[in-house]
Order: sequence, then structure tokens, then C-alpha cells
Amino acid sequence: MSIQPISWTPTGAIRILDQRALPEAQIERELTTADGVAEAIKTLQVRGAPLIGIAAAMGLAVGLRGHRGAPRSAFLAVLDDLIGVLGATRPTAVNLPWALERMRRVAHATTGEGAALWDRLAAEANAIWEEDRAMCRRIGEFGLPLLADGANVLTHCNAGALATGGIGTALAPVYLAHEAGRRVHVFVGETRPVLQGARLTAWELTHAGVPCTLIADSAAGSLLRGARVDLVLVGADRIAANGDFANKIGTYSLAVLAHHHRVPFYCAAPASTVDASLASGDAIPIEQRSAAEVKTFAGHPIAPPGAAAENPAFDVTPARYVTAFVTDRGLVHPPFGLAA
Amino acid sequence: MSIQPISWTPTGAIRILDQRALPEAQIERELTTADGVAEAIKTLQVRGAPLIGIAAAMGLAVGLRGHRGAPRSAFLAVLDDLIGVLGATRPTAVNLPWALERMRRVAHATTGEGAALWDRLAAEANAIWEEDRAMCRRIGEFGLPLLADGANVLTHCNAGALATGGIGTALAPVYLAHEAGRRVHVFVGETRPVLQGARLTAWELTHAGVPCTLIADSAAGSLLRGARVDLVLVGADRIAANGDFANKIGTYSLAVLAHHHRVPFYCAAPASTVDASLASGDAIPIEQRSAAEVKTFAGHPIAPPGAAAENPAFDVTPARYVTAFVTDRGLVHPPFGLAA
Repeated sequence: MSIQPISWTPTGAIRILDQRALPEAQIERELTTADGVAEAIKTLQVRGAPLIGIAAAMGLAVGLRGHRGAPRSAFLAVLDDLIGVLGATRPTAVNLPWALERMRRVAHATTGEGAALWDRLAAEANAIWEEDRAMCRRIGEFGLPLLADGANVLTHCNAGALATGGIGTALAPVYLAHEAGRRVHVFVGETRPVLQGARLTAWELTHAGVPCTLIADSAAGSLLRGARVDLVLVGADRIAANGDFANKIGTYSLAVLAHHHRVPFYCAAPASTVDASLASGDAIPIEQRSAAEVKTFAGHPIAPPGAAAENPAFDVTPARYVTAFVTDRGLVHPPFGLAA
Repeated sequence: MSIQPISWTPTGAIRILDQRALPEAQIERELTTADGVAEAIKTLQVRGAPLIGIAAAMGLAVGLRGHRGAPRSAFLAVLDDLIGVLGATRPTAVNLPWALERMRRVAHATTGEGAALWDRLAAEANAIWEEDRAMCRRIGEFGLPLLADGANVLTHCNAGALATGGIGTALAPVYLAHEAGRRVHVFVGETRPVLQGARLTAWELTHAGVPCTLIADSAAGSLLRGARVDLVLVGADRIAANGDFANKIGTYSLAVLAHHHRVPFYCAAPASTVDASLASGDAIPIEQRSAAEVKTFAGHPIAPPGAAAENPAFDVTPARYVTAFVTDRGLVHPPFGLAA
């Protein structure tokens, strides 16, 4: 896996792969301000719950770089401002506030003026990134036994290398199984309206040589009915204390369909995805995105101008549909006690 | 409702609304040969199970027009050829072989040479069209009591005026409820990959002033979970003797989701959709369409060239998920005895 959705440039800027342009074009962008990073998150140039957290932490470091000469209090004031800007970009993935709060705490716990605080924050951003890479690997290792030779996996959206600092969450076991020489095949729901399945997951699986088959999201039911799926494996944007979790719109439909057909349904996520402050999934804020994402495609209207459209970016899957969470600490089966 | 997806021109050609171009453009085409009609059916310029049957019958009349001077046996030989051409266009909707077989029987039952046979066939094509219009109306009347004031309907694909000779099948009760002054609102699944929901259903509902909201197909689960749907109402391409039915891919997923959330699930179809020769839905042939429909969008690749894609155009919903069929003869509840 050589896909790197985010990295530092030699001059201390952030280089991202603009995920809007895939698979037609591989466009890299350099971001040199926190506003630029916020815009990249908001417009889905950078997406995927773990990667959003990493990008936000790196965005703080980039945004504070010019304030290294500032005294402590002025530096911390700018930090708060930038946390506000980056934190307001997208509401659902908890990794975003988790990473920002971790950065804020580290800054306050560090003594000294701007320069010392900035060094600590830059190191913390790298630590968040490195930890995510390691968590992906462990998720892969814990999930590997779920994938027998010949397994057919159904996934949704993109919970792969493009969504994380490493080899992904839901796709991590797939990559490790493939590396281990097991034949594993992935059905990829295209994931309307933004098509992360078609554009990103099919792209990175193909890039890695993992056999995959793209389907319209609505074809999942007939695949399950035909016993062509051995397990469903998805990521998560936020997991409540009771195990309810938010993930890309359509995940809940897959959970019900898997349940109905007695097919195991796994959610793979690192510890940073758990929000122990929420008792249940009902409290998870669901991002409503623009109707234009549903009503147009590549600039073409696909619906009449007068028609309304709803575009919830996520839905909530109750814990009772989850066979197990595949976490960096192992498989967690119901009943769930995920609270840290 | 002034939408007319098919009609005769004054010179005896068939005028169709090219449904591929909607909603961006209203393009009408004149078809003067059976091959042209076959091509229009194959490429989805004309689609919808009842409309395909009507178009095929009219296509026979157009194709045989130049053979009116032929002797009986030569005329019947051309008829058989054209039935072969038109019948091979799409495999799933039974209305197509139903209409062609009806035309064949009528021709054989008529005495005389080509001229007499042609007159009879032209009249029969018009009768099929007129009967469909009347059946739509009756489906609407029988379905009307299902739609209380304030009802929220979820539909899939297009089973409306654009799919029939009249006011549609699944949408017929909606139109009659709207005409009767009831507030009725329709959630329209966009229906990937060909987007008949977004392009056609949202267009004709908006045209008629019926409030509707477009959604990504995968958002249906969360709408049902949120108790925002009072009933699901879809069409059918073929109904087996036991009540299993084929309809646009994604219908089965909606049926399971409706069942799971205890929301009534209705299938609206005229008598011509029943195929009493098939004991169950397992025997219904499912059209597999080009992977390109899934892998590209408005000419843009949305998936890597190397990725495989599956594109079943239909799925089969077992009878046990159907609350009732809304037919032109009334509501038919399970257990089903649809065989004629």
C-alpha cells in the first residue's frame, strides 16, 4: 500500500490528495493555513473519520507555525480560534473534536511560550497520525481471522487507506488477508451521493490488486438474498457508549439486510471513534449536506430544478445489529461496554 | 397529467419522448421501423413494463405497414420475424412477450390477406394502449383508499405516467389522491444506476404539482427507521403465480426494510404483468445490463477502469413481503392466487 492521502512537505506545508478528483485524476494540493485545511475537510478533499482527525491536528500545527514567536497567552488564543474553525467543518465524525481536544490539552499542559508549545503540538499531530497508522494495523490483525480463504466481503463508502493514516479500518483486514495470500473479494457499494465506494474504495482496492466488484447501493439486498456475501464490514464516524454508531448513509440499511439474512455485520474502528459522552446513537449529530449533491452530477442536473432533496450524510445503526466491533484492542462483542 | 410518452404521428409513425434525456431536455423522436422501436426499448428511450408492451405492439404495426400488400403467409412470416426482434430487446418485463403474443394470436385469428391483418393489428395495438390507460385509472381508484390525507409514500424507479399508457401504476393512486385534494408527499429513491427515480419520477411528480423529495436509494432505511414513511408503493415488471415479483433493482431491499419496520409494502400492476406460467420468482429472467451504467456517470468515469461491476437491472421480491398487490381488479392480499 503506497497510498498516502496526507503528508508533510519539506517546507512544513500539508500535502493532500484531493479525493474529489479520484479516480479520474490524482491531484495533490499543498495547504499552508488552517483555513485551507478547514476548507479541504468541508469540501471532502480530505475525508474519512480518522483522516479528518489527523488533518485537523496537522492543520493546527500549520496554522500556528507563524505564531511561534508569540507569547504563551496570545499563542493559546490563536489555538482556540483555529480549533473553532477546524471543529466547525463537519459535525458527525468524533475523531475531529477528539483530535482537536487532544491538541488543546497538550498545549495547555506544556510550559513555555509559543515556540515550545508549537514544537509540542507538531509532535502531537505526528503522534496522532502515527498512532492511527498503528491502530489500523492492529484492526487488520484482529479482523484477519474473520476472513477465510475465498471470503466475499461487502463494504460501503470508504474506510480504507484513503480514510486513515494507515491501511484503513474496514479494509485493513482485507489488505492483510490479501497479503497473506488468502483469496478475498470485496463487493463495493458505490455509496451515493458522493460515490466514495466507486471513486475511492474501488480505486484503492484495484491499486492494491484486491479483486472487487462495484454495485449500485440498492443491489446489496439481492446479493445477500443470493448468499453471495459472507460478511459485511464497514467503518464508523462515531460510536456511542452503548454501541450504536454513525456511519455513511446506507450503513443502517445494510445492517438490517445483513441481520435479516443472518450474515455477520462488523464495524471496524479505532478507539478514537468512541464517544463515551453519548449514551446512545440518538445523540449523534447527523450532518445534512447540500441537496445539490443528490440533484446534480458532474455539473449535470439529474432531477428537475423544482424537486426537493434530502441529503443526510450519515445514519445511525443500533448496536443490536452489530455482530462485533473490530477495534485496535480486539473484537468487541455485544453487550457493549465501549466507554473508556 | 399531460405527459405522453408514446403516441402516433399523423403519418403513422410512432412518436416517443426519449426518456434518456430527461429531465435536462424533452427530446421527441419519430420511429418508423420495428428495428427503431426495438433499439428504443433496448436503450431505455422507452421503458417501464406496461409501456414496453404498448411500444412493442405499436412497433409491430409500424413495421408491418409496408407489408400491407403482401399475401397472408408472407405477412405472417414478417410478423414472426418482427416479434423475434422486438421480443429479444429486454428479458424481464412480461408485458413485452404478453403484448407480442396477443398481437400474434389476433393476426392468426383474422381472415384475409396482409391488408386485413394489418388493420386488425393496428386496432389491437391501440386496444392494448387504451386498455392500459384504463387499467392505470382503475389501479389508481383501487389504491386511493391506501393514501390518507398527509400520507408519506416511498417509491422506487418510475412506475408513473412515463412507464405506462396512462397515469402510471404505483403513482396512479398518488395522482388521484392529489387530484382529490389530499395532501400526499412522495419520497423518491433516485434509482441508481439509471436514475429513473431522479430523472423521471421526480420530474413527472413535479410537473403534476405533487410534492416530492428525492433521496439517495440508501437513505430509505433511515427514513423508515424515523417513521417518516407511511407506505411503500412500487411497480412490477413480472409477477409469478405465487406472488413473487420482479421489479427494479433495489425493490427487494425496500421490501425487507419495510417488513422490518412494519410499514405496509404495496406493489401496483395491471393484469398484463402477471406471468401465470411461472410458479415462483426464481424463474423470472433477470436482465444483466452493462457495467458501464455503474462505472460511468454522464460520460465521466466514477470508478477505476480495472474494477469489475455487476449491474442486475431487477431483483425478485418474494410474495411474503407484499402487503397487497394493487391491481386493476382490486387489492389482492396474500395468500396469492393470481394465476388467470
